[in-house]
Amino acid sequence: MKIIFCCTGTKPEPWLAGLRSALPGAEVEVWQPGAPQADHAVVWAPPQQFFDEQTALKGIFNIGAGVDALLKLKLPPKATVVRLDDAGMSVQMAEYVCHAVIRHFREFDAYEADIRAGKWSYRKPLERSDFPVGVMGLGVLGARVAQSLAQFDFPVVGWSRSAKTLAGVRCFAGAERFSDFLSATRILVNLLPLTPETRDIMRLQTLSQLQSGGYVINVARGAHLVDEDLLSLLDKGHLAGATLDVFRTEPLPGEHPFWHNPKITITPHTSARTLRDQSIAQIAGKIRCLEAGQPIVGVVDPVRGY
Amino acid sequence: MKIIFCCTGTKPEPWLAGLRSALPGAEVEVWQPGAPQADHAVVWAPPQQFFDEQTALKGIFNIGAGVDALLKLKLPPKATVVRLDDAGMSVQMAEYVCHAVIRHFREFDAYEADIRAGKWSYRKPLERSDFPVGVMGLGVLGARVAQSLAQFDFPVVGWSRSAKTLAGVRCFAGAERFSDFLSATRILVNLLPLTPETRDIMRLQTLSQLQSGGYVINVARGAHLVDEDLLSLLDKGHLAGATLDVFRTEPLPGEHPFWHNPKITITPHTSARTLRDQSIAQIAGKIRCLEAGQPIVGVVDPVRGY
Repeated sequence: MKIIFCCTGTKPEPWLAGLRSALPGAEVEVWQPGAPQADHAVVWAPPQQFFDEQTALKGIFNIGAGVDALLKLKLPPKATVVRLDDAGMSVQMAEYVCHAVIRHFREFDAYEADIRAGKWSYRKPLERSDFPVGVMGLGVLGARVAQSLAQFDFPVVGWSRSAKTLAGVRCFAGAERFSDFLSATRILVNLLPLTPETRDIMRLQTLSQLQSGGYVINVARGAHLVDEDLLSLLDKGHLAGATLDVFRTEPLPGEHPFWHNPKITITPHTSARTLRDQSIAQIAGKIRCLEAGQPIVGVVDPVRGY
Repeated sequence: MKIIFCCTGTKPEPWLAGLRSALPGAEVEVWQPGAPQADHAVVWAPPQQFFDEQTALKGIFNIGAGVDALLKLKLPPKATVVRLDDAGMSVQMAEYVCHAVIRHFREFDAYEADIRAGKWSYRKPLERSDFPVGVMGLGVLGARVAQSLAQFDFPVVGWSRSAKTLAGVRCFAGAERFSDFLSATRILVNLLPLTPETRDIMRLQTLSQLQSGGYVINVARGAHLVDEDLLSLLDKGHLAGATLDVFRTEPLPGEHPFWHNPKITITPHTSARTLRDQSIAQIAGKIRCLEAGQPIVGVVDPVRGY
């Protein structure tokens, strides 16, 4: 069995060593143009030329949760496209989002500004019931995030394409309930896959439906959010702030207004990083299943887009 | 039935209204020197004169979780001393501590400094298994904090005076296991009651036993921590930082070195605030129980000190 590795921006050696050790007998190599046909590919942002050449692939393993960039390419028609399925990412997402929600709800930035100014001052505690959190996208990541938030007694609502049931979360489904979801939400957390339907989903018309003093946390993809609409609602005061980990262009261009807006906290796409050892173990296990004709989870439906 | 209210630094009107509404028929008044004898007292930091005069008290209700200041006074010998029992404080503690742990573990301050400098840069993710969190004190607050941390997959250890069992938490008990607890801990969270045995418990000799790169989160009482010992271990680099909400003197004196140490995050005793409505409901319920001769939780043992 031949496995080929083509991950832009990733040091290949530890991945090769890990895959070789997890799949004894497999040949694991870094892709070079003209390389022999492989059975499976481990990829991140590969060039189109990679798929033009590797036409015999049975499995294409994306080392991330989002496959929007991959699905823009023309892929070998018979290959199964597989995304990472948690692999240590959901706990990171839960951490990142809970941290951002708590920081906002508990007004830690305002406290810190006072402390920096040498001031010891109390603020009247805010009411938790005034801060319902709405999570868009209730897959592996979204479900864990929603349940972590519920653990802190926030009212939590969720929205997904197909109906879901989650303990402690009031779930809405489908386009026809989106407005109900938005108007039940003050802190909006986005964990949707990026598809033609979800592109620009956070725009003036939708974000204005959030409760007054709304807050936006985007940990999915930059193209879910219309930047100017967020800025305009922050300026108008309908929204109180945002924490953004993903952007339409990454790295975020130096002249972008997000860099220095005091209501916006940004991080460099670091909310949930691919953890190498867990990812290798998961991919190796799935390759063994595919080879044995057994079902696996995390198979992408190219039409649905995730 | 007469209830008397004597809470320094607290606006009495909403408490009086709440207690009157929760206990119809009760006379609820603010204490003035020379006031008639009451049956129950609702107190925070009362003067000794209050107890010297109010000798007929059956119940003394402290509107906080820590009773160390109260127990320094000479109290009416027959009165039952009652502390708040959660009343919305445990979720606040869980929030505060999880926020501080995640902020440190995920290096959000370092990311933020980069962003402020206009830099988009990744850091290698740290290993969760290298950051065991140790919680001292496993009462209502400590248990909830420990279990909230476990939910984020941190290794969690706990230490308490008497043996406890908590799902997902490796529990140590008693003085003879304290060193084992400390050496199993990298991030130390203090939620102990302040008693003669726990005063100065975080000092050079104990904090040096934390794992290298240790971190201290103090949300209990300032007198648990020897300030100079913390500063010295931060200077030496054995400890990486601290988040402190409580101090030996509050407000923290303007000249104190904690104000401007870059490794120390301070907040003005705001980790878990008394929530009025929940506290009134709880105290009213307990007064009804005491009057009916029924048992209540949260009774303080003055000898044990909590």
